[in-house]
Amino acid sequence: MDEPVRFGVIGLAHLHAFAMTGLLREAGAELVAFHGEPAAADGFGKLFPGARTCSDPAEILDDPTIGLVVCADVPDQRVRTGVAALERGKAFFVDKPAAVSTRELAELRRAQEASGRPCAIFFSERLTSRATCRALTLVQAGAIGEVVETVGFGPHQVGLAPRPEWFYEPARSGGILGDLASHQMDQFLAFTDSTEAEVIAAQVANRSHPDRASFEDFGSALLRGDRGTGYARVDWYTPAGLGVWGDGRLTVLGTEGTLEVRKYVDPAGRPGGDHLLLVDSNETRHIDCSRDRLAFASNLLTEVARGAPDGPAQARAFLAQHLALEAQAQAVRLP
Amino acid sequence: MDEPVRFGVIGLAHLHAFAMTGLLREAGAELVAFHGEPAAADGFGKLFPGARTCSDPAEILDDPTIGLVVCADVPDQRVRTGVAALERGKAFFVDKPAAVSTRELAELRRAQEASGRPCAIFFSERLTSRATCRALTLVQAGAIGEVVETVGFGPHQVGLAPRPEWFYEPARSGGILGDLASHQMDQFLAFTDSTEAEVIAAQVANRSHPDRASFEDFGSALLRGDRGTGYARVDWYTPAGLGVWGDGRLTVLGTEGTLEVRKYVDPAGRPGGDHLLLVDSNETRHIDCSRDRLAFASNLLTEVARGAPDGPAQARAFLAQHLALEAQAQAVRLP
Repeated sequence: MDEPVRFGVIGLAHLHAFAMTGLLREAGAELVAFHGEPAAADGFGKLFPGARTCSDPAEILDDPTIGLVVCADVPDQRVRTGVAALERGKAFFVDKPAAVSTRELAELRRAQEASGRPCAIFFSERLTSRATCRALTLVQAGAIGEVVETVGFGPHQVGLAPRPEWFYEPARSGGILGDLASHQMDQFLAFTDSTEAEVIAAQVANRSHPDRASFEDFGSALLRGDRGTGYARVDWYTPAGLGVWGDGRLTVLGTEGTLEVRKYVDPAGRPGGDHLLLVDSNETRHIDCSRDRLAFASNLLTEVARGAPDGPAQARAFLAQHLALEAQAQAVRLP
Repeated sequence: MDEPVRFGVIGLAHLHAFAMTGLLREAGAELVAFHGEPAAADGFGKLFPGARTCSDPAEILDDPTIGLVVCADVPDQRVRTGVAALERGKAFFVDKPAAVSTRELAELRRAQEASGRPCAIFFSERLTSRATCRALTLVQAGAIGEVVETVGFGPHQVGLAPRPEWFYEPARSGGILGDLASHQMDQFLAFTDSTEAEVIAAQVANRSHPDRASFEDFGSALLRGDRGTGYARVDWYTPAGLGVWGDGRLTVLGTEGTLEVRKYVDPAGRPGGDHLLLVDSNETRHIDCSRDRLAFASNLLTEVARGAPDGPAQARAFLAQHLALEAQAQAVRLP
């Protein structure tokens, strides 16, 4: 890229705003302006001092020098920002969940298709997980034969930070499957290489938050794609004794081998994260992926500069988010 | 027990006959007689030289000094032996699957109820897995709060031994879910402490045995019990590089912690099997269970001597096998 991509951030409700911004800057983009709630904007401005804070998101949306709008607003506020950005010919990079209903997501998708600009969703449990990226590279090279199934666990710790009210309201957060399980849907599609998929069964429960009636602290879904199956499970039970926010795991079952990713921790095992275990016809091997380069942000900036997304990846991102929201909508609520 | 329990073995089609016999003898029972195909009977007789070989199973069924009949015949032959043994007032100890259809299983159950004698099913992936037994003890002591879900992986290596023809015919073997997944159903019921459960979805596939049209090398099922949910996955893909026949795993998700059992191998990790990982509010801990005592066989012999099973455990064994056969019957066959 000759000129750095200039971007603005609208909505700092999720801490992912910081990670998304950091990744884009490391990859060479320039943060121009941001808008968010005063408390979050204050911290954000201190971390990224070169950018201007805006009291009105229109200052970002209407700035013709800005090519990319990043959004980590409260989930039910994201689509309107995305549609506005795409309608103005800007690319959009949104935290998951991109929307809180399949209807809303379809709106975002129509805006993306009309504009032709990239609309990336921050599926960080793959895109920023070095071991998961390495696993995908190995799968694509045929390391475990044909992929038959993925099983993804996305446990999270609820008490790490004080949570805002919207966090406890599925209609605003997207629900546990719409939100957390979207990562799992993304991995299921990426690893099975499915381009069509359906939700076979889904369920949610609230087992340990009796004071938050509508909250869901457990969810799971069974998926079937045109090239493999998947099971996704998410929860908010991670206990303090783990030492990290969640024991994110991905198991990829192939006809000739298996891959297991221990993303953030190897419990009572090796230090650090980004552990990949490969079993094939020859051996069982631990692969330390902690020094791998993450390609996601620079790939996104290339697409932004080009003005168009990678077609299959764009379709997959929408399908992953759709599956998560569809699972949420279909889910049986367990007693 | 004053007098040792005397037992006979009918059917040596599965190698489990050797394990079942060995466990009972170690626990103090006396092997009196056995019946099986000549090749298997030859090896069995050499391993257990004190017992007599019978050309007719009636010699065992009609021996009034025998209190327990063990059976590891071809799965579709097991129920008739079980019914005959129970009708004669003997206890019955059968390899999984106890039957190849829910209808057949109901027949066995009726015979057990009529006789009142114990009818144990050899769910070896719990009963002979020290780490799984320890995990259950911890769960029952409340170590991880309330159990929300179990996920069990039961991968197997197909090429370890030459497989007989019946192995490839689901109608005779019970199918991959009826057979292998019965272990997972047993663990799901034991760990969630569910006494009622249903199959929500089930699927099977043949992805790597194109020459064996009716064989199934993959299967999975989603279960819902009155006290928790479960996902069970089984397959015949284990590659030679693992070094053991399968990476059997059980993950138990609780509201206040998690347990992970690495039954037979800790891939690229600690040597040996029987690894238990506990995460709770205080710590993450590896527990080596390889020296734990297995109580199963001596408990069974106590029941046989008493002439009656433990009621809840008996009901659970039938329900576990029923769920597996029900999943098999309902399973969608994937392309």
